[in-house]
Amino acid sequence: MSDHHVVVVGGGFGGLQLVNGLKGAGVKITLIDRRNHHLFQPLLYQVATTILATSEIAWPIRHLYSDRPDVTTLLGDVMGVDKVAKTVTLRDGPTISYDTLVLATGATHAYFGRDDWEPVAPGLKTLEDATTIRRRVLLAFEQAETASDPAVRDALLTFVIIGAGPTGVELAGIIAELAHKTLPKEFRNIDTRKAKVMLVEAGPRVLPTFVPELSEYALKALNDLGVEVRLGKPVTQCTADGVQIGDEFVPCRTISWAAGVQASPAARWLDIPADRAGRAIVEKDLTAPGLPDVFVIGDTASVMQESGAPVPGVAPAAKQQGGYAAQVIRARLTGKTPPVFKYRHQGSLATIGRSAAIADFGRIKLKGGLAWWIWGIAHIYFLIGTRSRFAVAWSWLWIFLSGQHSARLITQRETIPDKK
Amino acid sequence: MSDHHVVVVGGGFGGLQLVNGLKGAGVKITLIDRRNHHLFQPLLYQVATTILATSEIAWPIRHLYSDRPDVTTLLGDVMGVDKVAKTVTLRDGPTISYDTLVLATGATHAYFGRDDWEPVAPGLKTLEDATTIRRRVLLAFEQAETASDPAVRDALLTFVIIGAGPTGVELAGIIAELAHKTLPKEFRNIDTRKAKVMLVEAGPRVLPTFVPELSEYALKALNDLGVEVRLGKPVTQCTADGVQIGDEFVPCRTISWAAGVQASPAARWLDIPADRAGRAIVEKDLTAPGLPDVFVIGDTASVMQESGAPVPGVAPAAKQQGGYAAQVIRARLTGKTPPVFKYRHQGSLATIGRSAAIADFGRIKLKGGLAWWIWGIAHIYFLIGTRSRFAVAWSWLWIFLSGQHSARLITQRETIPDKK
Repeated sequence: MSDHHVVVVGGGFGGLQLVNGLKGAGVKITLIDRRNHHLFQPLLYQVATTILATSEIAWPIRHLYSDRPDVTTLLGDVMGVDKVAKTVTLRDGPTISYDTLVLATGATHAYFGRDDWEPVAPGLKTLEDATTIRRRVLLAFEQAETASDPAVRDALLTFVIIGAGPTGVELAGIIAELAHKTLPKEFRNIDTRKAKVMLVEAGPRVLPTFVPELSEYALKALNDLGVEVRLGKPVTQCTADGVQIGDEFVPCRTISWAAGVQASPAARWLDIPADRAGRAIVEKDLTAPGLPDVFVIGDTASVMQESGAPVPGVAPAAKQQGGYAAQVIRARLTGKTPPVFKYRHQGSLATIGRSAAIADFGRIKLKGGLAWWIWGIAHIYFLIGTRSRFAVAWSWLWIFLSGQHSARLITQRETIPDKK
Repeated sequence: MSDHHVVVVGGGFGGLQLVNGLKGAGVKITLIDRRNHHLFQPLLYQVATTILATSEIAWPIRHLYSDRPDVTTLLGDVMGVDKVAKTVTLRDGPTISYDTLVLATGATHAYFGRDDWEPVAPGLKTLEDATTIRRRVLLAFEQAETASDPAVRDALLTFVIIGAGPTGVELAGIIAELAHKTLPKEFRNIDTRKAKVMLVEAGPRVLPTFVPELSEYALKALNDLGVEVRLGKPVTQCTADGVQIGDEFVPCRTISWAAGVQASPAARWLDIPADRAGRAIVEKDLTAPGLPDVFVIGDTASVMQESGAPVPGVAPAAKQQGGYAAQVIRARLTGKTPPVFKYRHQGSLATIGRSAAIADFGRIKLKGGLAWWIWGIAHIYFLIGTRSRFAVAWSWLWIFLSGQHSARLITQRETIPDKK
């Protein structure tokens, strides 16, 4: 094994693909993450909506590399990079030297300068975010069941989701199904079928990255599930009492945020230019400008396609970038010329509730049942390991057979933010 | 349906069995619990030790009674009972009138007057307790991997479990297996096989409610798993630095408490006599003295058998009491003479790690593999519903096949209590 030390920060889709791509390359790898687990973010909304258990979509990172003695996994919070000394500094921990550094630190949700909204309108990026949303949604129904004031009860039975990208659409669809199909028989004082689920989007249509025809279909599927969709109106205020949408104030106690993303501070650590969302603008080989030994990949990098369009912030793109960076590192070690990065778009999928979905594979566009099956099979396929595939398939099959969600737990006490 | 209103506080084994027993009795039932889920406590230690997911052993209570329109489920925290007005008061909620009240509020862990130990030595009664212990155990290994000071590393790799009843023995066994069998291949800087797992018991033997011969076997099985057992020495201090056991101070960062239980405040709410552990001393028909309309059952009641021995605080005993109280309520409503409560001991089971167990069915006493299979089958059988039985069986089968635990997640950030 050579002495070359590759330090990878972030065990998401990009980071793991990079480590996988360096198998047998004869380098020493240190993989650092703030969490002990890799998270399958595309299904995180299913934890938030009581369909899946946390452990079904998360795997201890170090376990994935138990058979790779070249990989050392560290749980640590990176505080910064010294690009001259070529070191990474961990909070309360050692300083780690690198020969090659790969920053694959992802993104988090952004409130467009209104970070004060976060406590009342949590986003969905971590397992804790998911269990927070799950707790709030379930608690709202519980509190409505004992509420004596009709106005309070109505606010408790109003659920607002902000942002109609895939996550917002998925959340709204499942919360509507929960209220209108799963829960009605279980409450005695309230009629959960009267719960209002509202999806708010500042732009003119839902799922704006899809073609208008598929957006149309998704909108109809949402309406069929009983979701009220408000398009073309920005949210101007979020409080514990409700949401201001254009001129309208909607009293509600449960708000979920799916409206914006902000890159992690990789660009700041390196002191290099970033785009508006904070993504580091990188070279064609995914290295930082002027720092050939530092790669920035995945959601924290701004990469342009030949067409001039940006590479989208999706899991397949992060994986391709991780695999590419591994190729470049291997090529350099053997004195070969590295290839050029080219993003191959494999198609887009989105699901609306338990039976509708849309798929766009370029020339082939699908909607309805077939798209839903493709969505389901693709997601099971991309899970890691037999155990998870089996467990998720079983949870889905169970819901299909019984209509009952399996993970309806209120854990980690917290009350809904009180009124002032 | 008659107007008779039965209020049940607590959705544990006793409370659910009572509600089940009143099916078709023509009464109105309100079931109140602080949590939205019934918890299968006998397997809680498996959540704490990364074997099972939280949702595999917990079920939303209201879902269990979706087909029982006579049952209203409320999420609420009972603050007290007015036995003259015959009402129950909820925190921030309505006051609820009862004709018959059943208190089945269970027990929590007790620190024998040293409640200040709780932050460093958490007990195991709720899902949050389980995920707290899981997080601390996993974090200790993670922090040991980056620790530079050998003394700190050794303290991080020392796990002390206080109390050698079934929970303490089960925790110690699985933590030892985790350290010695599951984790070694995944760490590069530490040898997890050198981790020290110590089970401390003030009394003279482990599992003291079993016969000495079975305790002997359990002690040997613990030793085989690499657990250091300290008998006959009380713990006199717990801090973030370690545990004082007799004259010996053991530096350690992860302490689990499995030493004592304290009944819930049912006796205090009713202002009736209690035993040393706070359990309400009840009449032969499980009603509170002088309050024939108030039953106290399960772990919060002190009930004597004909032999003079107390009814043990185990799930089957709580279930029998719940079923019995339902019979008494039914008999009263129909003017019949209620039966006399008689506890039938169905046997005791305890497990030590992944392959050893002991079973005591009175004349038949078992140890080893057969006892382990009986333990496993009995626990799967007593879970609620096909989905959970299948999911738990799958998790166990997977561990059996792969040796890999499925729920190794560090969630809900918290650092191990810092040194002063």
